[in-house]
Amino acid sequence: VKRIAESSVRRLSLYLRYLEDFEVRGQTTISSEALARCGGTTSAQVRKDLSFFGSFGKRGLGYAVPELAAKLREILGIGREWRVVVVGAGKIGAALAQYRGFLQHGFKLVGLFDNDPARVGKKWDGVVVRDMTRFEKDLRTLRPHIAIVTVPADAAQTVVDRLAKSGVRAILNFAPIAVQAKSDITVRNVNMALELEVLSYALVHQTDDE
Amino acid sequence: VKRIAESSVRRLSLYLRYLEDFEVRGQTTISSEALARCGGTTSAQVRKDLSFFGSFGKRGLGYAVPELAAKLREILGIGREWRVVVVGAGKIGAALAQYRGFLQHGFKLVGLFDNDPARVGKKWDGVVVRDMTRFEKDLRTLRPHIAIVTVPADAAQTVVDRLAKSGVRAILNFAPIAVQAKSDITVRNVNMALELEVLSYALVHQTDDE
Repeated sequence: VKRIAESSVRRLSLYLRYLEDFEVRGQTTISSEALARCGGTTSAQVRKDLSFFGSFGKRGLGYAVPELAAKLREILGIGREWRVVVVGAGKIGAALAQYRGFLQHGFKLVGLFDNDPARVGKKWDGVVVRDMTRFEKDLRTLRPHIAIVTVPADAAQTVVDRLAKSGVRAILNFAPIAVQAKSDITVRNVNMALELEVLSYALVHQTDDE
Repeated sequence: VKRIAESSVRRLSLYLRYLEDFEVRGQTTISSEALARCGGTTSAQVRKDLSFFGSFGKRGLGYAVPELAAKLREILGIGREWRVVVVGAGKIGAALAQYRGFLQHGFKLVGLFDNDPARVGKKWDGVVVRDMTRFEKDLRTLRPHIAIVTVPADAAQTVVDRLAKSGVRAILNFAPIAVQAKSDITVRNVNMALELEVLSYALVHQTDDE
């Protein structure tokens, strides 16, 4: 597998969203132009993104929807079962634990952790909240591929370090700081405060324009 | 206000996170090198990001923490009060409605909407869930600056269109599709499925490398 830009992976994921929608509605072929419109890009970009992984589609006929969807699922690793743990069983953690979209895409929640005694032992959607004191031991049993971190900012880096030491190679961080990890670990940061501040900046800018 | 790259806004937001942390701990000055380490960037980039908004810091002394934090808050529009509505009172919507970080950063939740009769009328953290049938009317009263959209994918574009028509100029979209809006509306997409698929892609890639 060749290295492709993260922006391409994001677009492939987006194309797949629409292809799955077309599959449900029984549409069998789609042109690169139509796929481009869905993804907010150009047909040249669609062809470039897809050509990276081989030859798809027929000139004048477009892409076969079920085949292209299957190929994108393979490329994106969907259909495999990925074991996921959520660290931090606060409101966001609990909402994620119950997020049905997980299962649909092959992500299986296998563990939920917190250090708050009031939360430990509770069940979210059938998964019990485990105590952080047994974190490393439990991780050896659960063997998660992916960890979602929803702990407070000042605890996030320590949690990420412990996950890295335990062999977790993919981390989705919701704590409002940029956590660091070795280059062989993929970290994605989703930062609510930051997203809101980008909007806030845009609003200030709009106001000053008027 | 000049147009700056979104990546710069994101870094400014990140610098502010750390400066606020330093403020709490009573640190009065910080070098561009230390700020660069926090933001995972270079000191040259820090100086460039900040120089865009004027002259800060003294050669050899670094930046005054409280002054720089205050300036960044002003640039990012923090400290103003932004009225926020959440559309979709499912699990993610409810978690966001109770997200304490909102208030800390001047974002005030003024309204919560859903079209499910089982949810309408319920209260989340003191804010009642309103019926979508009165959406436009309620928006005229609430006058939100920002809307957070957490409805299902197939409803998201319609909701965004209705928000745009009602004059909302900043939208944070959690629905797993890329919604479109006129260029004078700022839309940020936070896509859980997409984030997970980027991780999944990275895991496939790692596995194949071994």
